[in-house]
Amino acid sequence: MPFVKNSWYVAGWSTDFEDRLVPLTICAQNLVLFRTRAGEMVALEDRCPHRLLPLSRGKRIGDTIQCGYHGMTFGADGRCVRVPGQSNLPKSAYVDAYPTLERHGIVWIWMGEPEAADPALCFDMPELADPNWHVHHGDKLHIRANYLNVAENLVDPAHVSFVHPTTLGNAASENVPVHVKTGGEAIVAWRWIRDAEPIGFFKKFGGFSGNVDRWHYYYLHLPSTAVIDFGSADANLALPEEERDKGVRIFALHFVTPVEEGYTIDHWMHLRNTALGDEEASEQMDRMFRIAFDEDKAILEAIHEEEQRPQKRKPIRIAIDKGPNVYRMRIRDMLEAEATVDLGEPVSPVFVQHD
Amino acid sequence: MPFVKNSWYVAGWSTDFEDRLVPLTICAQNLVLFRTRAGEMVALEDRCPHRLLPLSRGKRIGDTIQCGYHGMTFGADGRCVRVPGQSNLPKSAYVDAYPTLERHGIVWIWMGEPEAADPALCFDMPELADPNWHVHHGDKLHIRANYLNVAENLVDPAHVSFVHPTTLGNAASENVPVHVKTGGEAIVAWRWIRDAEPIGFFKKFGGFSGNVDRWHYYYLHLPSTAVIDFGSADANLALPEEERDKGVRIFALHFVTPVEEGYTIDHWMHLRNTALGDEEASEQMDRMFRIAFDEDKAILEAIHEEEQRPQKRKPIRIAIDKGPNVYRMRIRDMLEAEATVDLGEPVSPVFVQHD
Amino acid sequence: MPFVKNSWYVAGWSTDFEDRLVPLTICAQNLVLFRTRAGEMVALEDRCPHRLLPLSRGKRIGDTIQCGYHGMTFGADGRCVRVPGQSNLPKSAYVDAYPTLERHGIVWIWMGEPEAADPALCFDMPELADPNWHVHHGDKLHIRANYLNVAENLVDPAHVSFVHPTTLGNAASENVPVHVKTGGEAIVAWRWIRDAEPIGFFKKFGGFSGNVDRWHYYYLHLPSTAVIDFGSADANLALPEEERDKGVRIFALHFVTPVEEGYTIDHWMHLRNTALGDEEASEQMDRMFRIAFDEDKAILEAIHEEEQRPQKRKPIRIAIDKGPNVYRMRIRDMLEAEATVDLGEPVSPVFVQHD
Repeated sequence: MPFVKNSWYVAGWSTDFEDRLVPLTICAQNLVLFRTRAGEMVALEDRCPHRLLPLSRGKRIGDTIQCGYHGMTFGADGRCVRVPGQSNLPKSAYVDAYPTLERHGIVWIWMGEPEAADPALCFDMPELADPNWHVHHGDKLHIRANYLNVAENLVDPAHVSFVHPTTLGNAASENVPVHVKTGGEAIVAWRWIRDAEPIGFFKKFGGFSGNVDRWHYYYLHLPSTAVIDFGSADANLALPEEERDKGVRIFALHFVTPVEEGYTIDHWMHLRNTALGDEEASEQMDRMFRIAFDEDKAILEAIHEEEQRPQKRKPIRIAIDKGPNVYRMRIRDMLEAEATVDLGEPVSPVFVQHD
Repeated sequence: MPFVKNSWYVAGWSTDFEDRLVPLTICAQNLVLFRTRAGEMVALEDRCPHRLLPLSRGKRIGDTIQCGYHGMTFGADGRCVRVPGQSNLPKSAYVDAYPTLERHGIVWIWMGEPEAADPALCFDMPELADPNWHVHHGDKLHIRANYLNVAENLVDPAHVSFVHPTTLGNAASENVPVHVKTGGEAIVAWRWIRDAEPIGFFKKFGGFSGNVDRWHYYYLHLPSTAVIDFGSADANLALPEEERDKGVRIFALHFVTPVEEGYTIDHWMHLRNTALGDEEASEQMDRMFRIAFDEDKAILEAIHEEEQRPQKRKPIRIAIDKGPNVYRMRIRDMLEAEATVDLGEPVSPVFVQHD
Repeated sequence: MPFVKNSWYVAGWSTDFEDRLVPLTICAQNLVLFRTRAGEMVALEDRCPHRLLPLSRGKRIGDTIQCGYHGMTFGADGRCVRVPGQSNLPKSAYVDAYPTLERHGIVWIWMGEPEAADPALCFDMPELADPNWHVHHGDKLHIRANYLNVAENLVDPAHVSFVHPTTLGNAASENVPVHVKTGGEAIVAWRWIRDAEPIGFFKKFGGFSGNVDRWHYYYLHLPSTAVIDFGSADANLALPEEERDKGVRIFALHFVTPVEEGYTIDHWMHLRNTALGDEEASEQMDRMFRIAFDEDKAILEAIHEEEQRPQKRKPIRIAIDKGPNVYRMRIRDMLEAEATVDLGEPVSPVFVQHD
């Protein structure tokens, strides 16, 4: 299955990129990234068109890269600016340049047709710039699995009770039905567990003693950015669905970047309306997230291995699969659109209100 | 080459299986095994039909397995007994269940058509239950080679002089001809080395000072169970062939289980009519067997690697190959039978008298 | 791409071979080599024709090899001289034998048609036997890359400024044009850098204080033996091209042996007209060579990996590629000749004067 190309994918945190050459692979395309002296992010095809040495093996000279084999040199736009031993610079001497975008401390890269790289298509949410929210960059999770399986897991609240019984879920939710809304800009799956024991995470951070109302909203923005809105409120408040800000509320963000067919990096971070400015709380949350996400990683990698083995029967689909099923259909539509028209029609939604 | 499926293969010693879930691969099929609370062995396909997570990654609940991803739960017969989030249990929600058999401390599994799984087809020999014989379970030898090459080696007395010169053979036997009988329930290859120096093994365990008559009988029960009957007697006794019980006699048993095309586990054990109840003797024998079987392993793995390389000419066959040649023919017949009729005709012989 | 077979390839230094069996792979052919009691080098196909065990796993008995599985025994000419268990020796029981040649402490093997193995076709140069030259065997460099890429690098002076800036090149040479002569027995690429700062290597060994004239001549003898003639002389001498012996002159020899498609061994050594008999100078030079050749290895292995990846556009060729381009054409001619006539026409030149 090919990758959805016409999309902004996260290449890393802003702090990952200084002036050295950074090799990265996204959508099976080897890239070399660096920041110009003016601070702009540059992303080029990481292969000299001459003898194919990766340019990341070369040397940065000003805002150009000099190949480490014979010194051919390329500018930030990918065009060759020097061929040692000759004076003419043939037009065919170039490498592909990829549009980049930097916002909220996150570096994005557009892997599709450059002309279609509209910054307005890049994921954003108002809380990222809102002082009432604490924004904390987490980490990169390397997963030996296909990115669609990783993303699908993020619109699938049903797995939480079984995969994360000590952190993000518990047995109380095993049979609580999942609601799914698939018509809007993002696929949304959610459920409320009313008047139940708080989960490990909120025991720690919410300071709840009695029962709580707990919610999980999974917003999956195509192709592979997830916003998980979860929180808890004292059960006595009987909190209406639209007043979640009155509880302890957290947005966990997952930017799922396909590296190769069987290799994915999940850049994760969170926003919260509690413990603002408390970096120790951030670290504690990271530790709990790490436990939970490593549980996902173990499952996803075992499945990936199993998917490589021969299949005797078709897999089955069950009631809780509604979100993942719609997700797969829409991905197939995006791939079909990219495969059959010049540019593809951008489906990726932008700036969704999480109300 | 496919595997012979309609056969009982050894999955392990009884002591390998307690109540935890044990993942195993036999005939390239991933399995999960466990023992029910009543003590029965269960073997299921190790793949949830929903999202393909191996069930061995899940949790045992009573005599069922709950998948570790979304909690689908399967009984000992492979049928789904719970789908969280819905009340109906579709018929297509099942995993394959494999017949098992436990006898003499050995767990067997039937990899073919379940209806054909007749316990009477499982290898047995009366000495396994005879108090005049000491029965000792040895070990599992993991070999990176095809199981047919491993089994073939066990109906091939001619290799002993060259592969095991310090343990099971010596130069005295290099040119002694091999007899082969191929008409019965097992292929048998044997030879006697009369009035010769004892081999290392019997120097140690037989207490012989002078020359001995030494025998090697290799019984290969199709598809891949070998009984090696070997022993020595004082050369002055001029022991007749049918009176081997009067000498120091050992049966080495090899249960050769195909894991994958290029990976085999040989479960080996022995029976002996000497040093009954002497566990130190058992340990000493295991040490000698380990030396010898590691010699086989080194040869078989080198051949396996070589077989993956291109071939310039057909391999040649020589006089000593009679046993292996017949073995290959009969395996091809078994495969043909399995491929062309519903059930295959069980060829595997049972309960052979080693007289 | 197949290998050029009708050629003498270096198997190792004479000191690599004593009486034990040495397994080697050349042109994807597994070989076993040993030296007979009379001192002759023997090279046989490393695969018993019976059960395919590599003969190098067997035992040397006199000037024969006994297979480690069933004792089939082969003479230095590859013919079977013993089959245990039978008296006839079928003609089809043989392994291929490969012609060998030993000269100047180097062991060569002919991988093509044995009848075409003319010692006169083997690379030689008079300095190897000239007491005015110090001959020093270096080392073996294992490179995970195709041998054609390794050899091509040795007729490519342009890379030196970029890959070896601290040892064999410096920035002074980046734009100095390269001359190429392709009509003779070897492809020759060369350039002079006149009146420039000495490179690291000659700062160390030439004892130059002021500017020098520096030359690099790359002779590539097909298919893959390179002679690099490099040196320096005081710039005040204004040394004519044909009087290089008056300067400090070094021949670096590279015998590039294809192991597998993506694996090559470069046996390198040098001759020099300075520091005769000074083994400490030899060691110092080896250290500098090792630094430089490891720089090549890193580049060549990165390119090899990149070549395995999909290609979006054709690679480009530039002015400095003349030597490599002619090399590739002549290799294609050799392969075509080998593929279409019985014997191939030996193209490999011999005994070139480096005047």
